[in-house]
Amino acid sequence: MPEIGADVDPAELLTVAREEARLGAREGGVPIGAALFGSAGELLGRGRNRRVQDGDPSLHAETAAFRAAGRRPHYRDTIMVTTLSPCWYCSGLVRQFGIPRVVIGEARTFTGGHDWLAEHGVRITVLDDPECAALMRAFVDRHPDLWHEDIGAGHS
Amino acid sequence: MPEIGADVDPAELLTVAREEARLGAREGGVPIGAALFGSAGELLGRGRNRRVQDGDPSLHAETAAFRAAGRRPHYRDTIMVTTLSPCWYCSGLVRQFGIPRVVIGEARTFTGGHDWLAEHGVRITVLDDPECAALMRAFVDRHPDLWHEDIGAGHS
Repeated sequence: MPEIGADVDPAELLTVAREEARLGAREGGVPIGAALFGSAGELLGRGRNRRVQDGDPSLHAETAAFRAAGRRPHYRDTIMVTTLSPCWYCSGLVRQFGIPRVVIGEARTFTGGHDWLAEHGVRITVLDDPECAALMRAFVDRHPDLWHEDIGAGHS
Repeated sequence: MPEIGADVDPAELLTVAREEARLGAREGGVPIGAALFGSAGELLGRGRNRRVQDGDPSLHAETAAFRAAGRRPHYRDTIMVTTLSPCWYCSGLVRQFGIPRVVIGEARTFTGGHDWLAEHGVRITVLDDPECAALMRAFVDRHPDLWHEDIGAGHS
């Protein structure tokens, strides 16, 4: 089997996830975006964190993109692109559904389970994108409470 | 801090998740149910796998119950109850959100990440409930394709 996404530019794929993160920021939400692509770079689903917008704690960016892609028999030929290193919840999604490749905007403001995924054979690309990091940094500075809530680390 | 759920009977909590699994079976869905409880056994949210019913691959039983519970600042005083050993996706949810205790109906028909959760300090109780296992066995026998799809192991 050829390498998944051999002919696609990870930075190009990230533009869709970053656009979702920007939309989330404008809405006052947690500015994390994601998109699921097929192996040739075709978009299957895109989404952003919806905790604030919908009051839904289950929709992280990756799970929102996964949901938007709808039912598929398997994910062995897909690429998950996310603006931020995936938390354990979203890393678990990637592992369970056998998504073979993950492109990450940045892992500076938060590091989730991407090393764990790499240990389990997932190909990881971290782009260290300045805009993705700037969006997160601005949000966490202004709304530390919301960010902590989003990763289950809130105060009582 | 007192032990989470010290005064609750795990088998009693399971009745709610099992009722969700039964409803799912009647709807033709993947018969897995879950419920999130507070430390004194108060119900916070309940749900069932909704792949078939809603065409939504992101709603496993545990994520549906988590969603139904709505936004909370943290989950350090909650108990996740599920009829089946949680897959990596749902195990990741438990770990990320710091849910300290998981009650599992059965782990015979499928074993997910509950040993991994135990290694990371989550208290795991497996009840080996015959009805939970019978619901799953009947479903997997009749719809192996749907079951494999639900765990990302479907055929092309």
